Amino acid sequence: MEKSIPDIVVGRLPRYLRSLEYMLKNGIKTTSSQELGESIGISAAQIRKDLSQFGEFGKQGTGYSVRYLVDQLQSILHVNQSWDLVLVGVGDLGTALATYQGFVNRGFHIVLAFDNDPAKTGKKIGDVTILGMDQMETKIAESGAKIAMLSVPASAAQEVAEKLIKSGIRAILNYAPMQLILPGDIHVEYLDPITKLQHMTYYLG
Amino acid sequence: MEKSIPDIVVGRLPRYLRSLEYMLKNGIKTTSSQELGESIGISAAQIRKDLSQFGEFGKQGTGYSVRYLVDQLQSILHVNQSWDLVLVGVGDLGTALATYQGFVNRGFHIVLAFDNDPAKTGKKIGDVTILGMDQMETKIAESGAKIAMLSVPASAAQEVAEKLIKSGIRAILNYAPMQLILPGDIHVEYLDPITKLQHMTYYLG
Repeated sequence: MEKSIPDIVVGRLPRYLRSLEYMLKNGIKTTSSQELGESIGISAAQIRKDLSQFGEFGKQGTGYSVRYLVDQLQSILHVNQSWDLVLVGVGDLGTALATYQGFVNRGFHIVLAFDNDPAKTGKKIGDVTILGMDQMETKIAESGAKIAMLSVPASAAQEVAEKLIKSGIRAILNYAPMQLILPGDIHVEYLDPITKLQHMTYYLG
Repeated sequence: MEKSIPDIVVGRLPRYLRSLEYMLKNGIKTTSSQELGESIGISAAQIRKDLSQFGEFGKQGTGYSVRYLVDQLQSILHVNQSWDLVLVGVGDLGTALATYQGFVNRGFHIVLAFDNDPAKTGKKIGDVTILGMDQMETKIAESGAKIAMLSVPASAAQEVAEKLIKSGIRAILNYAPMQLILPGDIHVEYLDPITKLQHMTYYLG
């Protein structure tokens, strides 16, 4: 059944959740698709349509219970549980990721970190000790982690990604400015500042 | 005329460009919407439809000239010129951004960096000297920069963003995990690892 939901709809749910969690934190108990839409920059009609794919979350005229919608979205996105993360590449960006409190607060825990620089291995970063790349496949397989964050240079990204998959990783958050060519059942998301900047320069030119 | 192109289409163009530039670098002279689509994970039909909104870029049966399409997309996205960037927040992430060579290589130059930590101001990061937040509005206005990267804590993001706009900034790349509420003519893009991770956990649960 989940298969039938378009990926672009799934991609909007975390943004709804982020806004709703913010409302909850600020003591807001009910909201409307209009209000939620304004806080995100998505039309109320789109939000109603997206949510309707997953069920009936609000009553006509009374809006949504923020708490209920947060619970439902967390359940749909499977973030009502904690997830182990693997970090590969501990340069400046990797260091920022390893020490970012935002992951832990949202149920994501970095359990392993790898780098190919011998000067870094053995050192502690955040809660973990940096291991060499030669230990990557064994350690990830042992850990059972399914999600990796890839912050290696673009030239190494494809090779490392393939090794990650062999180790049992099913989802990769790719910070390398590089399209990965991977089997269709592997989930990849990209965080590339250049494509985001170029999206905006379209409007600035 | 540009106003009539849906933003979601505009957002795909930088991804096409990234793949095409990679082909160019690797000596590939012609490509097809099929080939381009496979390298990005977007259907050939979608690519043809997106590109057709901007003109006629290939001939039926002979495919696209990679060089020509790169030139056209660079022109459409206004990245055939260089752009000045302002960096606000020089923590671990800001440091990674300030020293990331990928910006310079793609025509984006960090010309100003700000942080509210007195221990950091006066120090050099990448090519610039970190200035205090009290100098932000004056220095940005003087520079004429239109794009800012925001890597401050979530609690400070909204206030800083409003100051940026008063200083003449028109586009913000927001790394703070925080929806900004800004005037409709300001362009904001988000780079939030949590929403990307939650997009993937949907499929892993």
